[in-house]
Amino acid sequence: MDLQTLNTPAALIDVGRMRHNIGRMQAHLDALGVRFRPHVKTTKCTHVVDAQTAAGAQGVTVSTLKEAEQFFAHGIRDIVYAVGMVPAKLGQALALRRQGCDLKLVTDSLPAAHAIAEFGRAHGERFEVWIEVDVDGHRSGIPPDAGLLIDVGRALVDGGLVLGGVLAHAGSSYEYSTPEALAAIAEQERSRTVQAAERLRAAGLPCPVVSIGSTPTALAARHLDGVTEVRAGVYVMFDLVMHNIGVCDLSDIALSVLTTVIGHQEEKGWAIVDAGWMAMSRDRGTQRQARDFGYGQVCTEHGDVLGDYVMSAANQEHGIVSRAGAPDSGIAQRFPIGTRLRILPNHACATGAQHPEYQAIGDDGSAQAWPRFYGW
Amino acid sequence: MDLQTLNTPAALIDVGRMRHNIGRMQAHLDALGVRFRPHVKTTKCTHVVDAQTAAGAQGVTVSTLKEAEQFFAHGIRDIVYAVGMVPAKLGQALALRRQGCDLKLVTDSLPAAHAIAEFGRAHGERFEVWIEVDVDGHRSGIPPDAGLLIDVGRALVDGGLVLGGVLAHAGSSYEYSTPEALAAIAEQERSRTVQAAERLRAAGLPCPVVSIGSTPTALAARHLDGVTEVRAGVYVMFDLVMHNIGVCDLSDIALSVLTTVIGHQEEKGWAIVDAGWMAMSRDRGTQRQARDFGYGQVCTEHGDVLGDYVMSAANQEHGIVSRAGAPDSGIAQRFPIGTRLRILPNHACATGAQHPEYQAIGDDGSAQAWPRFYGW
Repeated sequence: MDLQTLNTPAALIDVGRMRHNIGRMQAHLDALGVRFRPHVKTTKCTHVVDAQTAAGAQGVTVSTLKEAEQFFAHGIRDIVYAVGMVPAKLGQALALRRQGCDLKLVTDSLPAAHAIAEFGRAHGERFEVWIEVDVDGHRSGIPPDAGLLIDVGRALVDGGLVLGGVLAHAGSSYEYSTPEALAAIAEQERSRTVQAAERLRAAGLPCPVVSIGSTPTALAARHLDGVTEVRAGVYVMFDLVMHNIGVCDLSDIALSVLTTVIGHQEEKGWAIVDAGWMAMSRDRGTQRQARDFGYGQVCTEHGDVLGDYVMSAANQEHGIVSRAGAPDSGIAQRFPIGTRLRILPNHACATGAQHPEYQAIGDDGSAQAWPRFYGW
Repeated sequence: MDLQTLNTPAALIDVGRMRHNIGRMQAHLDALGVRFRPHVKTTKCTHVVDAQTAAGAQGVTVSTLKEAEQFFAHGIRDIVYAVGMVPAKLGQALALRRQGCDLKLVTDSLPAAHAIAEFGRAHGERFEVWIEVDVDGHRSGIPPDAGLLIDVGRALVDGGLVLGGVLAHAGSSYEYSTPEALAAIAEQERSRTVQAAERLRAAGLPCPVVSIGSTPTALAARHLDGVTEVRAGVYVMFDLVMHNIGVCDLSDIALSVLTTVIGHQEEKGWAIVDAGWMAMSRDRGTQRQARDFGYGQVCTEHGDVLGDYVMSAANQEHGIVSRAGAPDSGIAQRFPIGTRLRILPNHACATGAQHPEYQAIGDDGSAQAWPRFYGW
């Protein structure tokens, strides 16, 4: 298969851009002297993760135990499950560890810490657990100055578990768009996580790993003193949200959706395409950013950005392509039925998840199917 | 498996509610004297479609040729592909017809009509084509009073194709929420589609089928004179968007996502759950409706609605459950770690698409896996 013969809609990966993105992040973190543990929830694709590992990544971060199972089966042992552990999933985690997976769990509460310890004792398994730290009030985690931090650390150690370290994710970094603001939130993520680690150590508790990360903060960080590893996911593809944040150019975005024009409403300046929200996802992440790209930026079949043309609306299997601002009354001549276009997505994690496979497009236009999995 | 032992997140179908919804629509359309052709894009699940067929549905509507292939393989011959046909997909359509599938295509343009005719001549296949009619300016289709309607009809017939009828979808019905407004848009959909059929017939062209439908207009229609069949999809599950439109009660919604509480931010009144947008979809269809449910309405594990608790925000595998209005400072006691909740979704088509299978929950709490497919 090649680009010209692919069925539409299809999720394309521009392999050259992907390799560039992988190399950029790895070189940046190598220079800052920290390990890099990519978050594989973005692509759930062994071909992509193999490229990340080949470039120097060490271990992976996962958002589901299914991801852990799939990537362990693919040969990756060092895995952090970066979602708060609950008792009902301990059996699944135990099975992975019994098979030889070096699976690390995460918690931010005493009830969960006690439950993991109790389950570990009952099954003779010394789970490694990291404590989640809240650095920006975004979602989960314990504030670095809270008494609870030490209580959870002690509960883990006293419960016979391995306290492996602390982990934080500055999810609020997605709300900024200037280099100064990004550098500030990156430093906040770093300093607060290091503070948590130092408080644990001062209390006589071990804390070998200090793990932080998000794509914007990872790229904006100027130094990472006290940090041992960084996690990031979406950087491997980038997307329009990341473009608005200011950490990539449109020409860095490696994921796009190939689509075909199936009709027009000329008076409205609409071309109708066969990629709707099922192919793009319902993610409207650019809606509240400086530039709203609708459901995506329109490009030529070969990936050249087509100015102000966006997918302005989407139904399940229909997308509406139009020109932002003044409608294009000549759109039927510009994009006749059968025209193939690429759409750059708002959010690479969400768009990828709609597709059973990527089509990896080489510089020569060749297409190779790279399967991805889904579900839990 | 049963409800208590299912892994989370999981997409649940309350089978009793589903059967009630199927019976309600079928009885309504039987009373109006028209055939019913469900749109299977909502569930892409043979178990669900078998229940629709057993209740009296005749044939199916599909939004992708993969749906046509899957349901034809399951034994359904009478299939309408309700998305404008493009030349590049004719080979796939031809293969289906050669295997005995009574596949109907749709067009709203002369270039596509000519392309189908040319391809049909080249391959000795007399495709059946329906003309898409625009009844509300929502998306695709030819206005019923446009000269183009007759031109396309004649192009199909002169091109050696079977002109099977006209098809319309009043997608704008989703914008209304009173019985009077819904009845008016239903009548507009009916009358304009019938007008198109009558104009074709007056021009000496055949138009045996007059096909209309959307869930709101199908349920709001008071008579369907001149219509031969109705299509609707989401009625089989219903969702919060349909509830806001006013065509179902919360207790009719048959699809929900089972999730587990994994943590809290007590000062904020948040419970964190293990269903994020990956499990719910990014669909925020209630955002611009009278009541915004965030990412979904929270219910008990057994499906009882929990007042003002909604999933107010979502990351990929984390959801934030909170009380609309005043934060619940006692949320950690109300929903301790490990608590299982059901979340009613904004949009059943989008939420279902995130899951490889449904879990069909019987009245006795038993759970049966009902696979669904995705992709193109």
